Amino acid sequence: MALQLYNSLTRKKEEFKPLKKGRVGIYVCGPTVYGHAHLGHAKSYVSFDCLVRYLRYLGYSVTYVQNITDVGHLTDDADEGQDKIVLEAKKEKKHPMAVAEYYARSFFEDMDALNCVRPDISPRATGHIAEQLEAIKTLIEKGYAYEAGGSVYFDVRKFTDYGRLSGRNVEEMLAGARIEVAPEKRHPADFALWKKAEPNHIMKWASPWGPGFPGWHLECSVMSTKYLGGPLDIHGGGIENQFPHHDCEIAQAEAVSGKPFARYWLHNNMVTVDGRKMGKSLNNFITLKDVFSGSHERLSQAYSPLAVRQLVLNSHYRNCLDFSDAALFAAQSGYNKITDTVKALRRRIGIAPHSAPDPQVVKRLEELTGRFEAAMDDDLNTSVALSVIFDMVRLAAEQLGENAPDGSLVSIDERFTVLAGDCLGIVLREYPAAGPAVDGLVEIAVEQRNNARRSRDFETADAIRQKLADCGIVLEDGPDGTTWRTK
Amino acid sequence: MALQLYNSLTRKKEEFKPLKKGRVGIYVCGPTVYGHAHLGHAKSYVSFDCLVRYLRYLGYSVTYVQNITDVGHLTDDADEGQDKIVLEAKKEKKHPMAVAEYYARSFFEDMDALNCVRPDISPRATGHIAEQLEAIKTLIEKGYAYEAGGSVYFDVRKFTDYGRLSGRNVEEMLAGARIEVAPEKRHPADFALWKKAEPNHIMKWASPWGPGFPGWHLECSVMSTKYLGGPLDIHGGGIENQFPHHDCEIAQAEAVSGKPFARYWLHNNMVTVDGRKMGKSLNNFITLKDVFSGSHERLSQAYSPLAVRQLVLNSHYRNCLDFSDAALFAAQSGYNKITDTVKALRRRIGIAPHSAPDPQVVKRLEELTGRFEAAMDDDLNTSVALSVIFDMVRLAAEQLGENAPDGSLVSIDERFTVLAGDCLGIVLREYPAAGPAVDGLVEIAVEQRNNARRSRDFETADAIRQKLADCGIVLEDGPDGTTWRTK
Repeated sequence: MALQLYNSLTRKKEEFKPLKKGRVGIYVCGPTVYGHAHLGHAKSYVSFDCLVRYLRYLGYSVTYVQNITDVGHLTDDADEGQDKIVLEAKKEKKHPMAVAEYYARSFFEDMDALNCVRPDISPRATGHIAEQLEAIKTLIEKGYAYEAGGSVYFDVRKFTDYGRLSGRNVEEMLAGARIEVAPEKRHPADFALWKKAEPNHIMKWASPWGPGFPGWHLECSVMSTKYLGGPLDIHGGGIENQFPHHDCEIAQAEAVSGKPFARYWLHNNMVTVDGRKMGKSLNNFITLKDVFSGSHERLSQAYSPLAVRQLVLNSHYRNCLDFSDAALFAAQSGYNKITDTVKALRRRIGIAPHSAPDPQVVKRLEELTGRFEAAMDDDLNTSVALSVIFDMVRLAAEQLGENAPDGSLVSIDERFTVLAGDCLGIVLREYPAAGPAVDGLVEIAVEQRNNARRSRDFETADAIRQKLADCGIVLEDGPDGTTWRTK
Repeated sequence: MALQLYNSLTRKKEEFKPLKKGRVGIYVCGPTVYGHAHLGHAKSYVSFDCLVRYLRYLGYSVTYVQNITDVGHLTDDADEGQDKIVLEAKKEKKHPMAVAEYYARSFFEDMDALNCVRPDISPRATGHIAEQLEAIKTLIEKGYAYEAGGSVYFDVRKFTDYGRLSGRNVEEMLAGARIEVAPEKRHPADFALWKKAEPNHIMKWASPWGPGFPGWHLECSVMSTKYLGGPLDIHGGGIENQFPHHDCEIAQAEAVSGKPFARYWLHNNMVTVDGRKMGKSLNNFITLKDVFSGSHERLSQAYSPLAVRQLVLNSHYRNCLDFSDAALFAAQSGYNKITDTVKALRRRIGIAPHSAPDPQVVKRLEELTGRFEAAMDDDLNTSVALSVIFDMVRLAAEQLGENAPDGSLVSIDERFTVLAGDCLGIVLREYPAAGPAVDGLVEIAVEQRNNARRSRDFETADAIRQKLADCGIVLEDGPDGTTWRTK
């Protein structure tokens, strides 16, 4: 089976075929950097990170572009209100670009923690003013846009099928909730390409229509095609941005170029809290930094970044993910189970006698790989893919033992590394050492404890066990000897 | 005494007074991101980082802007040759912006490792094309620039005192080695504001003079004044960029605004290798990643990032720093001495009985602080400032002891943290734990060894000592008991 992706444009699963053999260009709408990233961002960027990772696993050469919005995103997500970053800058008494710099850095920190592969290019809206001005000039020349009162608007009635991605039509939009009737617009659904700036507005540029700033939708059309050409193979983003943002992108880009903008549109669903979308503008968000540190009233503890990643992958990207501490807790347990297994495998491999892998194990790994790929090929069904990883945990448990040779263990570890690691991003090729010396130090303590037990000095043995526990090291005495793990 | 800085513009040390009381705006020329940062970058950015840190220590509110050059820097560092990033992109078969993204990230990684405070704003040349086009239009309007063959040049004879920073005059420049005689230039010293792009050139933008790209010097004039206004309090950069780069910046910015560009010009000297400047274009560079990993034929071992920082601070920023493995080795030893002292202080403070600080110690710390400030006030004499830190190491050694109470130790630690930490950046407020459990685990082993020694089981005691050594932990038995350190 080949990779099938649900294309929002055609409203069905389709076999994915890139335009150029072996190469894929993906554009994903990035964050507006006026606050720390929250769980909603994790859902979107982990989902598309898995897509990029899986395409690379399949052998494609992928160019991944994801923008940073640092101007023009207004508080109503359309043409009214204040620039979100300028507003934050006033609050923090900083230059808007210092605010953007700070939160862009914070965003990448969090994405790195979630083990999201960095985009190849992270273009910024303010970094492409010249390109946006050129696009606006072209749209005016071609009759798709008009100037009014120092702003420039896209004339939606000039563009055939405006709203085709979200399935809206212009007449219905008249009744739409998000449309403000601006008197200078020819049609209430017309949207700003360029907004006139008031004299004291700080983020503004010179233009043929006077000082202003670009409309939010324009950057994505311009930057995606600048770096990936057109048509794009895949355009991704959050479902809440299908309209107006993505429909506007299509209108702008296709009106400029005269050719289709993007071939596959993928939309991730939302993270909800008590049934409502989690979002900064709704003020019901939990930042990733909160989750990683456990400092939020709705959290019972700190969670590992990769447990958050696992939580996202537990559900399908097109499904809602309802936030709860219990769901995070379950994800953390599942993540720990996988991690402990991989670490145990690698510890054993480091000391086990060499052997060839058991052909039975190899066969089972092939079967698991097949099931994993089938799940991912089915529109990135990561929850099924994860269930395959848990089957691999069981297989590892069967094979691990005090006297196990390394052959089968190496094969299992290699599958964990490729499938749960390279594709899903929840297993690392190397885990940061718990400290250069921890393994050796624990061994010394365990040996001293064994000596004490042998000489029937149970007091000392118990004291050592207790002191190890104080250091966060748990000993487990089994029939095959004593093993240990970190708490 | 107040802070004195050597101003390249006046060629003397001057008392530093910002334009607005309590606020300082600094612009420092950042890297061209077409390769990994090398020791030459460390010299420049650690030096200016110390300036920013010291100004903040003095109570100034500092806005620190440092650019990223991602277009227009040509291979001859003037108007001829290929764009350095485009050239690297061809080599790596990537989009130039992906190259810039990759090496910008690498740069910040290395600067973070060197404990350089991030600039508040890191503007990019490609991110300010619109602003640069506006500046060129103004320069043409004001008669300072002219179009020729699709390029635009600055007419150096129109600008009074062109070359005043470097002390050159236009007629001398005729004989200058770096000046190419381009037939379309009115004077051989004229420099490009905008370069015409050949049809297949990838990094180009539309302009009133046809497709092209900005000259390298322009971005700094435009981005510094955009974010800091003018005149700038401080402009920093490498001495090798005094001419033509900084003289061009002055000409452009002052011709646009009609007011002085920067009040204090600070230049750091170079890192040399065998007497020649270390530079990527000279191909005699050692990257910071090489130094941190020890993987270079001229290095005998890996060095800590903060040892590199200490190496830079060992000499004055206006002096050359000649690279040698021996100098790095010495810096590493010095750095270890300081770090071990601070860690020993903090370990002791954690378990010491409470006490008031000894008034004698407090007095000596005040005296040391005075000497430290005097050194830094004297044009950032970091090598003298470091010698004060080593005096503090000696003071700490006198005060540390098995029965020392915490009072004086806390005072000494606080001075280390502020002077060697906040100002010089070589002491951390918190050291990453060597692993959550290492301290406790070593204690278990030491206790078991003590038990063995008490029962005259020297074989076991020695075995534990040896095993700890295998884990990188060195025990030192002294009259006051056993202490340990990591190798």
